[in-house]
Amino acid sequence: MNVAFIGMGAMGSAIARNLMAAGHRLSVYNRTPERARPLVEAGARLAASPADAAREAAAVFTMLADDQAVEAVTFGADGLLGALDEAAVHVSMSTISVALCERLAATHRDAGRGFVAAPVLGRPAAAAQAKLFVAAAGEASAMTRVMPLLEVLSQRVTVVAESPAQASVLKLIANFLISTVIESVGEAHALARKSGLDSHAMLEFLTGAIFNAPVYKTYGPLIVDGKFEPPGFALPLGQKDNRLVLQAAEALNVAMPFAAVVRERFLVARSQGWDGRDWSAIGSLAGRDAAV
Amino acid sequence: MNVAFIGMGAMGSAIARNLMAAGHRLSVYNRTPERARPLVEAGARLAASPADAAREAAAVFTMLADDQAVEAVTFGADGLLGALDEAAVHVSMSTISVALCERLAATHRDAGRGFVAAPVLGRPAAAAQAKLFVAAAGEASAMTRVMPLLEVLSQRVTVVAESPAQASVLKLIANFLISTVIESVGEAHALARKSGLDSHAMLEFLTGAIFNAPVYKTYGPLIVDGKFEPPGFALPLGQKDNRLVLQAAEALNVAMPFAAVVRERFLVARSQGWDGRDWSAIGSLAGRDAAV
Amino acid sequence: MNVAFIGMGAMGSAIARNLMAAGHRLSVYNRTPERARPLVEAGARLAASPADAAREAAAVFTMLADDQAVEAVTFGADGLLGALDEAAVHVSMSTISVALCERLAATHRDAGRGFVAAPVLGRPAAAAQAKLFVAAAGEASAMTRVMPLLEVLSQRVTVVAESPAQASVLKLIANFLISTVIESVGEAHALARKSGLDSHAMLEFLTGAIFNAPVYKTYGPLIVDGKFEPPGFALPLGQKDNRLVLQAAEALNVAMPFAAVVRERFLVARSQGWDGRDWSAIGSLAGRDAAV
Amino acid sequence: MNVAFIGMGAMGSAIARNLMAAGHRLSVYNRTPERARPLVEAGARLAASPADAAREAAAVFTMLADDQAVEAVTFGADGLLGALDEAAVHVSMSTISVALCERLAATHRDAGRGFVAAPVLGRPAAAAQAKLFVAAAGEASAMTRVMPLLEVLSQRVTVVAESPAQASVLKLIANFLISTVIESVGEAHALARKSGLDSHAMLEFLTGAIFNAPVYKTYGPLIVDGKFEPPGFALPLGQKDNRLVLQAAEALNVAMPFAAVVRERFLVARSQGWDGRDWSAIGSLAGRDAAV
Repeated sequence: MNVAFIGMGAMGSAIARNLMAAGHRLSVYNRTPERARPLVEAGARLAASPADAAREAAAVFTMLADDQAVEAVTFGADGLLGALDEAAVHVSMSTISVALCERLAATHRDAGRGFVAAPVLGRPAAAAQAKLFVAAAGEASAMTRVMPLLEVLSQRVTVVAESPAQASVLKLIANFLISTVIESVGEAHALARKSGLDSHAMLEFLTGAIFNAPVYKTYGPLIVDGKFEPPGFALPLGQKDNRLVLQAAEALNVAMPFAAVVRERFLVARSQGWDGRDWSAIGSLAGRDAAV
Repeated sequence: MNVAFIGMGAMGSAIARNLMAAGHRLSVYNRTPERARPLVEAGARLAASPADAAREAAAVFTMLADDQAVEAVTFGADGLLGALDEAAVHVSMSTISVALCERLAATHRDAGRGFVAAPVLGRPAAAAQAKLFVAAAGEASAMTRVMPLLEVLSQRVTVVAESPAQASVLKLIANFLISTVIESVGEAHALARKSGLDSHAMLEFLTGAIFNAPVYKTYGPLIVDGKFEPPGFALPLGQKDNRLVLQAAEALNVAMPFAAVVRERFLVARSQGWDGRDWSAIGSLAGRDAAV
Repeated sequence: MNVAFIGMGAMGSAIARNLMAAGHRLSVYNRTPERARPLVEAGARLAASPADAAREAAAVFTMLADDQAVEAVTFGADGLLGALDEAAVHVSMSTISVALCERLAATHRDAGRGFVAAPVLGRPAAAAQAKLFVAAAGEASAMTRVMPLLEVLSQRVTVVAESPAQASVLKLIANFLISTVIESVGEAHALARKSGLDSHAMLEFLTGAIFNAPVYKTYGPLIVDGKFEPPGFALPLGQKDNRLVLQAAEALNVAMPFAAVVRERFLVARSQGWDGRDWSAIGSLAGRDAAV
Repeated sequence: MNVAFIGMGAMGSAIARNLMAAGHRLSVYNRTPERARPLVEAGARLAASPADAAREAAAVFTMLADDQAVEAVTFGADGLLGALDEAAVHVSMSTISVALCERLAATHRDAGRGFVAAPVLGRPAAAAQAKLFVAAAGEASAMTRVMPLLEVLSQRVTVVAESPAQASVLKLIANFLISTVIESVGEAHALARKSGLDSHAMLEFLTGAIFNAPVYKTYGPLIVDGKFEPPGFALPLGQKDNRLVLQAAEALNVAMPFAAVVRERFLVARSQGWDGRDWSAIGSLAGRDAAV
């Protein structure tokens, strides 16, 4: 299948490579073309623009940092919007606002093009091993066409809704839940340390019992060991996702006290100059407040 | 081995039964003796007092609702304290305050008796199947003597420290973490519902991905389905444990913003008259605030 | 002096009337012209557009509901920007975002026009009696020119800075502080009621002692008596100002936990359908949570 | 009138002196007798015990640091309880828990003695000038007897209820409200500083407008100038009162989010080693978090 892939960051490159390995012909685009070089050397075509990448592609993936980037490659000059084949499907994997997701869905629907929101859970290492988890939402016909591609790049695809915006909500909820794990383990660690309880023993017990999930096993040690550099997911990006979930909730008048606590943690963290750290660094603020 | 078991609630009865099934001779005590009848019918000796139960026992277990109950059976008239054999070990499985755990440890140490704090994670059904998780702490010699008993009643024993009080801290931390899962899933559910996202699809995706731990699989459906009765763990008991973790943290000047949010949820829940519900009912307050 | 006044809401009309009473010639503009009729009947000229109002005016006041309205009358087609005399000063009294205030300041500076931010404290009744408090900021030359006008419409003008944006910050801070009074009195009232303490006696004691300021005397009785309709300052506008102060703080990485609590109160209030109530209605949520 | 005064701290000594200046005969007691010396030199009788002080007194005042101290002088060996004349009234001015106040009321009622709770607002300087504000509660007959004394030592006595415990609630509410002023001004100051707005100009504007009450005029400058030493009211005492209001609210299932934020501020402050500072030092934590 002809596949376009826009966004050659750590996540996008890893995913695109898996699609190519499954036999698909890729055209790739990145704003700074050097980052696309490894894929091009592996056989992908380097596109000159999002529109150029999208031409003749049956599926066009976007995996970008934020709303602005997605808007630019979609609606901008030489954006993918004007170049989509009649039968093509735009697959948006980025974590974007619910509002933008709704706008994308409406635009493609009006233009008679397919659109699937397919945000993922997983870090770059998981992407490289095709171990991502995909939350997909879109109309059935579009979903059917891209499902084989989503299955190639992930360990599991869950179709969560027909409305793409709901996949966007779900992704924001997932990142919100991760942030609550970070904060709660951070508070637990602060109390453990000040009590003289070994935090590694604490984690061993918890993740050996009812907390034996990757979210605790991944973030627990980062917080307990204070290993926040280099970042797996940079703190300002984590803050962005917290902002997006609060925006989505505010639009519906939903108060989320835990999300509000996390919001403040990000502000304090940024005031400390921690932009270069992993977002799990907010898990160290409870300890800082307690002077441990 | 001669084993005494004090506290014949749902948890205690199930655990005692497993000890008896492993071939140990049990003497059991409960303030209201009727609740001990099933064990007695299964072959246990009914003791007239905690002291009576403790006499000639190599290990004396206590599994009771709160500090007051543990104090009564330990330090009260006919309490176990005066009746412990020289080689006996008191095994405290109750969720109690750190301060009481320290007092018990000091008392037994001064009296030359063994003491192991062994709080557990798991609900009555898990106790019945010997699937509990035990966080044990105590001096090595006492620990060695009771380890075979702990292994019989659980699926895993983690020795987390030498100081018993630290097992108490760990248990409070574990319950704190469960409460944060309840609150965070409650907020997620409120946002999902108001967004039109199906909360069951949300849970399916999350627990199929990096949240695939019993804590999410157990509490998620309770909250999403609003199944808070009958209670598995009554709301006032959950509030008590929240109070205990905040007390432990306050004694060490540790601020725990998430625990503070949970504290308020319990107060609101009790004002609504929800004492008869499961503690996970606090997970419905985000939805109530959002009028969904 | 020729004065233009844009925005004929309750506040704007009252202020404009005082300027006219002091002998100034007013041209007035409002998007829906009917609301300007009382002023026109009192002798003001009805302008067809913001630009029309601004022509030949020495001072152009804007007093509007939000950023969007101020942007429209300033930068929009027939906006005041193109019609300002060389010596004219734009006096912005609206509560607007710091970002918009900075943009207005920069635009006027680049165009060689005067600009003074002069937000006010006080409700319509105070405006009618020229009892407002003005926090003014702007370059000295512009300030000098409009000071006589500001003095006419208020009981006190405080020049708080040279940079207009700082008057905007101060206004947002003032409204934030009022919101904290509302919330704190609401919590006090909930506790008093449930304790059997008469809340009127409570207020009498407090406002007779160290809390004897209008902010407590005005909002205390509203909350204690539950008099939230008709609104003096509508709840959605109060929420808007809370949003603005949080935005200003977020831009500078300042965590404001009290503002965050107030933010959630507004969300809950709006979910209850309280858009038609006074913003002090958030002071009733503590009581609602406590079921009093 | 024969008056006993127990508690010769800064507040108690100043109040006792005013009673003596009004012509009353005082017997005074303090655990460490040296602190009573100035009063004795001015003509008071030094009592050997609370009981000794109370003998033949028509009114017995207690003004002590906390519940423990009040319990000791009341119920302890040689406590005032056994020595009260039939017609005597115990006037409790200390800030104590609602529970202790209820216990005192019940005890005196059962013994047929008068009891008035009369906590005060004001610092030692105000006490010295008889400028305190008294919130009094008690049965009418007892109130009548001590009213002339209360009027001598204050600028205003407000009878707020018949039930003494409600004066206790009111005092805790008053201190809670002061703590919210401290926190809110602290947040405002952090935002002002980071915005480049002069915090003194901010205070001048606010306290010249609707915030012109002593609570803002007293605490605002302390926070803006960072003048936390020597303490007027020590931080651990402020924390104690926050604990008492939260306890009173918890007993009635009242959630107080602002009080909860203040609770955390005190914990962080104590972790920083600020026990020797004024309680208004918690108003500096917003700035610390924002790194200003």
